[in-house]
Amino acid sequence: MRIEIICTGDEVLTGKIVNTNFSYMAQKLEDVGLSVHWGTTVGDDRDSLLRAFRLAGERADAVIVNGGLGPTVDDLSQEIAAQAAGVELELHEEWLERMEAFFLKRARSMPPNNRKQAMLPAGAEMLDNPIGTACGFALDIGKARFFFTPGVPRELRRMLEEQIIPRLLERGGEPTSIFLKRFHSYGLGESHVDQLLAGVEAMAPDGSIKLGFRAHYPQIETKLTVRGTDAGDISRKLEPVQAEVRRRLGNFILAEDDKTLEGVVLAELLARQGTLAVVETFTGGQIAVRLAPMPGAEHVFRRGIVVREFTQLHGVLGLEGVHLAGPMTQETTEAVARAARERSGATHALVVLIELDDGPDRIDFGGTIWIGIATAEATAFRRSRVLGGREWVRLGAAELALDCLRRFLLGLPVVERIDFEKT
Amino acid sequence: MRIEIICTGDEVLTGKIVNTNFSYMAQKLEDVGLSVHWGTTVGDDRDSLLRAFRLAGERADAVIVNGGLGPTVDDLSQEIAAQAAGVELELHEEWLERMEAFFLKRARSMPPNNRKQAMLPAGAEMLDNPIGTACGFALDIGKARFFFTPGVPRELRRMLEEQIIPRLLERGGEPTSIFLKRFHSYGLGESHVDQLLAGVEAMAPDGSIKLGFRAHYPQIETKLTVRGTDAGDISRKLEPVQAEVRRRLGNFILAEDDKTLEGVVLAELLARQGTLAVVETFTGGQIAVRLAPMPGAEHVFRRGIVVREFTQLHGVLGLEGVHLAGPMTQETTEAVARAARERSGATHALVVLIELDDGPDRIDFGGTIWIGIATAEATAFRRSRVLGGREWVRLGAAELALDCLRRFLLGLPVVERIDFEKT
Repeated sequence: MRIEIICTGDEVLTGKIVNTNFSYMAQKLEDVGLSVHWGTTVGDDRDSLLRAFRLAGERADAVIVNGGLGPTVDDLSQEIAAQAAGVELELHEEWLERMEAFFLKRARSMPPNNRKQAMLPAGAEMLDNPIGTACGFALDIGKARFFFTPGVPRELRRMLEEQIIPRLLERGGEPTSIFLKRFHSYGLGESHVDQLLAGVEAMAPDGSIKLGFRAHYPQIETKLTVRGTDAGDISRKLEPVQAEVRRRLGNFILAEDDKTLEGVVLAELLARQGTLAVVETFTGGQIAVRLAPMPGAEHVFRRGIVVREFTQLHGVLGLEGVHLAGPMTQETTEAVARAARERSGATHALVVLIELDDGPDRIDFGGTIWIGIATAEATAFRRSRVLGGREWVRLGAAELALDCLRRFLLGLPVVERIDFEKT
Repeated sequence: MRIEIICTGDEVLTGKIVNTNFSYMAQKLEDVGLSVHWGTTVGDDRDSLLRAFRLAGERADAVIVNGGLGPTVDDLSQEIAAQAAGVELELHEEWLERMEAFFLKRARSMPPNNRKQAMLPAGAEMLDNPIGTACGFALDIGKARFFFTPGVPRELRRMLEEQIIPRLLERGGEPTSIFLKRFHSYGLGESHVDQLLAGVEAMAPDGSIKLGFRAHYPQIETKLTVRGTDAGDISRKLEPVQAEVRRRLGNFILAEDDKTLEGVVLAELLARQGTLAVVETFTGGQIAVRLAPMPGAEHVFRRGIVVREFTQLHGVLGLEGVHLAGPMTQETTEAVARAARERSGATHALVVLIELDDGPDRIDFGGTIWIGIATAEATAFRRSRVLGGREWVRLGAAELALDCLRRFLLGLPVVERIDFEKT
């Protein structure tokens, strides 16, 4: 099936906003085994819209149009859709009632210009939007089925998943139950993960599982798209494959599905009624800012300390007799971790001390990272060296530190070679 | 002049990467008074590329093609450009030598497949790429002038600014000297800024200054694009208009051009050999992380403290006799600021205490923000209330706090009503 996407709107065409709706839609379709063949971006302009709809209607089997369903005069999608399909606009009574109820629920009366949002091309199939006033719809233009969607990202997302993808899968004659299993890992590069997982797709019969990746440094997301007749069928196919992925990526999997590294750390601490103190230097608060604002963190995140000069730690943690002015050592790192825990009264302390290289910020600029973890009973230590410029070192150090804490909490080895470090 | 952009590559078409090159190019063209009329996205596919080039060649006067100039087999731009223009590929000796020198400088010999990057369509005009091996070029396809650019963002940016925009302006018959003046403000909504600046464009003769905005909450960027015959002409036109913008937006301008709010705060502190201690709660390190990692911050950023429960501040700052468990007050906020300064030995302390509402995260979820600033001689205080959900409160509080410190350091009123707060 040949699918095209048309994104509309002056804000997108002029670059005033980055077109994340396009990448979102394309990824979601890839996740269910569908592919986008062509993307078009046009402004709020009658001639361009008409031309774009007609061209796509000649080339594609299915077209998703995003934007232009709002109440203002520059929202033109319904009007031009009707023109391209050679039909009239007509009032969709059901949607008008829905909109009036929508406003009533918010104790407001519907402004007259919202009525325009209930004018759909004659013969269009309505696509429900339970969280907004823009009514989605589908109709044929040329040889393609067109799906019109709102520009507001959360409205688009819901309509795409609940209304459009099932219709596309049905048109493609594919089993319409789809499940996306995701693994988030840290420490292995994309090509390394790809190589470790060679052959896992073939474990499922008849190509019903598709393997994919998305890299966003420093994490890699590994995706298994499973297609089946129903939830039981999907579960039977997925079970052995996901077990194999877990076995091969092992300790490097830091979370699955909607979970995050910081969420896993927070949950582990919450589960044992633990509390945490964090000491940071060049990461500058990057670790605290991932943990501290989360719901529930008010019970766990005891204290964060940020300094740029190691010697400033004397003022915060005392550390009499500990030499902070010279080159860093394992002993000093662990002493800082113990002091941070004792001073704060937290059950756990995480310390990340970074010695930055001298010189300008270049691709070979690096830093040496000293990570210490302390509880009342134990300490752990990890040293690493990361190159790639100031920002790369900063992101890498924050990720490595949180991952060390995850490993410590889960009883996994804190020290395990990663692809992103020099030794 | 009708300009189109064609973005190529499977990674963009499948949504694996978000297409920021498109928005970057569109904005840069807008900044010099040019507009993009149509955007196309296609994959690394011969048929699609050829069709896209031909369609654009029929419709446009100028086309910018991004991507597909690399050394691998799926980089097809030169080959399809030649096919669309009806010419052969030929070796561009000058570029081959440039590439060999490029590798030599890095003490490597050129891999054989890089030779492909020096194969350009016959008659193409070379567009220099001083920082990479992908050679840009221009040639005519249909009735349009095509400009082929590399996908690597920093290579694209330099080529667009130095090579392509001057050629486009020349083709358009416009004066080719362009200057972009930018003002960053915080506290006024986009429509408010627009209204305050009504009529400033008209101060310059013959439409030579164009006003534009870009909103990225919580900041608004106001842009003046000035066109002139040379730098002196531009300066004469810009001078009275930028003075008027500064007068109308007044204290709300927090930085100009490439400067940032955190950069201005850091520079002000550096200039007076000042040092800073920061105390945060729900912002969770968001203020520290903007200041602490900056070059130069090692001399200024003395200490950052993050807690989620106000009472934890006793453990860090003492504060005997200060009641942190009850509702927050101005007196307590100022006491925390004074203690943070004294304990850290910094010249300045900034304290941001947030009382979050109870209940689920919704659009009307809010927080009350208590900001205190202390030096040895003075204290300042600002209270605010922001609605819009957890993330909105968090971003707004960090911005407001940094802006209060900027105002304090510059001798401006710390308390001035902003559009984003409820009173």
